[in-house]
Amino acid sequence: MTTRQLHLNGFLKAAGEYHAGWRVPGNPPDAGVNFPFLAEQVRRLEAATFDSVFLPDLLGVPDDPPAVTERVAWSNDTLEPTTVLAALSTITSRIGLVATASTSYNQPYTVARVFASLDHLSKGRAGWNVVTSLNDAEARNFGLSAHLGHAERYRRAEEFFDVVAGLWDSFDDGAVRADRVAGRFFDPAGLHRLDHHGEFFDVAGPLNIRRPPQGRPVIAQAGSSGPGRTLAARIADVVFTRALPLADAQAYYASVKQQASAFGRAPLVLPELATVVAPTRAEAEDRFAAVRDLLDPRVALADVQYWAGVDLTGLPLSAPLPPLAEGNRSTGAQAEIYAQAARDNLTIGDLVQIVTDGDGAIIGTPADVADHIEEYFTQDAADGFNVSFPWQPATLVDFTELVVPELRRRGLFRTEYTGATLRDHLGLPRPPSRYAPD
Amino acid sequence: MTTRQLHLNGFLKAAGEYHAGWRVPGNPPDAGVNFPFLAEQVRRLEAATFDSVFLPDLLGVPDDPPAVTERVAWSNDTLEPTTVLAALSTITSRIGLVATASTSYNQPYTVARVFASLDHLSKGRAGWNVVTSLNDAEARNFGLSAHLGHAERYRRAEEFFDVVAGLWDSFDDGAVRADRVAGRFFDPAGLHRLDHHGEFFDVAGPLNIRRPPQGRPVIAQAGSSGPGRTLAARIADVVFTRALPLADAQAYYASVKQQASAFGRAPLVLPELATVVAPTRAEAEDRFAAVRDLLDPRVALADVQYWAGVDLTGLPLSAPLPPLAEGNRSTGAQAEIYAQAARDNLTIGDLVQIVTDGDGAIIGTPADVADHIEEYFTQDAADGFNVSFPWQPATLVDFTELVVPELRRRGLFRTEYTGATLRDHLGLPRPPSRYAPD
Repeated sequence: MTTRQLHLNGFLKAAGEYHAGWRVPGNPPDAGVNFPFLAEQVRRLEAATFDSVFLPDLLGVPDDPPAVTERVAWSNDTLEPTTVLAALSTITSRIGLVATASTSYNQPYTVARVFASLDHLSKGRAGWNVVTSLNDAEARNFGLSAHLGHAERYRRAEEFFDVVAGLWDSFDDGAVRADRVAGRFFDPAGLHRLDHHGEFFDVAGPLNIRRPPQGRPVIAQAGSSGPGRTLAARIADVVFTRALPLADAQAYYASVKQQASAFGRAPLVLPELATVVAPTRAEAEDRFAAVRDLLDPRVALADVQYWAGVDLTGLPLSAPLPPLAEGNRSTGAQAEIYAQAARDNLTIGDLVQIVTDGDGAIIGTPADVADHIEEYFTQDAADGFNVSFPWQPATLVDFTELVVPELRRRGLFRTEYTGATLRDHLGLPRPPSRYAPD
Repeated sequence: MTTRQLHLNGFLKAAGEYHAGWRVPGNPPDAGVNFPFLAEQVRRLEAATFDSVFLPDLLGVPDDPPAVTERVAWSNDTLEPTTVLAALSTITSRIGLVATASTSYNQPYTVARVFASLDHLSKGRAGWNVVTSLNDAEARNFGLSAHLGHAERYRRAEEFFDVVAGLWDSFDDGAVRADRVAGRFFDPAGLHRLDHHGEFFDVAGPLNIRRPPQGRPVIAQAGSSGPGRTLAARIADVVFTRALPLADAQAYYASVKQQASAFGRAPLVLPELATVVAPTRAEAEDRFAAVRDLLDPRVALADVQYWAGVDLTGLPLSAPLPPLAEGNRSTGAQAEIYAQAARDNLTIGDLVQIVTDGDGAIIGTPADVADHIEEYFTQDAADGFNVSFPWQPATLVDFTELVVPELRRRGLFRTEYTGATLRDHLGLPRPPSRYAPD
């Protein structure tokens, strides 16, 4: 048995993950649409042998008061992620390229084509982060007055994924022969129509592109609600989750692995990890304090409201989160923040403070960060991390230059890529086609 | 007044425009998914100072008998065009990048984002070829049992475009200030919600990306039916049309210009031009004859059937096209092929022969091709050409190496790019935002 490998994914928002990150000098004023800047960050992650880079996405500007919206960079001004991945495919050669696409506001034929193309363009480095989308502002850009109900959008996601996966198998591996002499481009026995008829979709197929190099691009998912976890257990190769205390992370890890084992699967679990590192703790704390001072409290409050999925307008900071109305619009993120508030008896003001303080970010030395990673990795709480960067380029540069060498020194992380595809990096097999003989 | 400029767009199918093109040695067996091969062709077009390259698209494998489908390359195995354009944006710096996206099977918010991103990635070189899609095979991949009716899909296209154009104006030019000191990312007075409510779409907006560098990516359209021409007149910067005899091309040109003038517009008209060139006519004819022999007659017949939009199964080649049933499924292409057949008294077999013979391709010397271009360009039949390449790389290389120098010698075509954006190349102004003060 080979040594278990630590996996690192770079969770990239060009304007920075921390809401005041864009205000830090060094972040270009057009970071969200500045491809050369973004490419430079990705090249750094590739030089640091990260498994992959991941671009999150929203399909609209969140509904916030203007005084909040005007202070936020990322969700107002961001390149569409699949086009960015395609552009990145030409200037990188090894790092995996993962983008978000919503199952609620796309058509499966389109998503199947785009990710098959990305997998071909990158020679087997593409991944799809399957999201069901979260908020009403997105729904209103796609003809709905409010977000799809929770149960409905997970049923749709399940079916959406099945259609996409089926379409990727339209051509058997090797069915396209391009036999010039006989004039036969492909072997018709190796082409399959899907003929899917379901609750949400009717899709005949076949997909008009040969099978992706990875057979199936890597599937990432971040479900934390009940249906979200079930979806992840069934389809995910990689499960993203938020930062949690060790015991909670262990429980989550065990639960994901156990649920997935029922499907004969063993997805990798990557909790989010934000870091501010410096040679000494005092320096790291000073660096963070300077940026924390740039965060407007209204923006932090809006962030709490966004994740809690409730209107906090007019409530005092000393109040608890308001009780939830019964209904089906709850999300996993909402359930988590309510559970956290109940467990620790937190007011709205406490939650705002947690966001302001970096929401679980590790602020310390390279050894502090490496200790955290090693602890979670060796104690069944993580297979690696979804590393976010509060502001850029500094926190990304520091992670690659200070933390990665420490992880390598400890024998926890690769020093070079040994495979060619994202599946290779993650230690995942190439799935056979559903039509392949056993 | 500056001298009128000839415009050349490269109409690129990696497997070749002629259906037997993929069988010509030199075309790689994976041309449709081989980005380095495609990139090499685009670099050649950029070196030849083409205005733009254009990627057509279909959203499905056409319904043909297996004996036809298995002999066809392009429509079975092609990268999704917006991802290809994004990848091309990084390896080119001047040539315009135009991709097809359907208004029948996409959502306007998605298309607005993707083309805004492409325009940012390419620094103002993106174009959108607006199509309404054509066939039932595509419809069945998007939940419909047959293609949308002609009138309905043009109403949808009109509304779709208006939503996309409105979303591109969400942020005023200069509204994103990224004022680090004040902490204000943008000026809220410069952000506009669309709040569109129409027959097909309800889209609130705003789009979550700053205004594209060109204000509005270049719009191409190829409508040849009545509603298609009306749409082109109202929205197109560039009108693609099929190859026509001079008098017909002049009539079409005059009609497009006249219709557009009612909207205060003057789109460029670019007829398709396929060429096989060689130093002598005999050599050009020999080259074409060798490839013509590779075309299976069943494939040529299927092509006639595809454009005619009727089932020709079981009809003798000596028969005329069958009479059309009344209905709303007719397309401009169908009307044109029926008009041509009626005018010239053509049987199905004659039409198959026309396809087999290259369907209007100019087969001759560089001077022959330049004469044709010059005649159409100077006699009010074309503002340039949508140059297709029957097989690759040879016919593309020959066009750039033999024809372009001849056009330059005659003072018809640029010797270097003088502008930075696709609008610059085409001589089109940057449209002001709809919200800009007069």
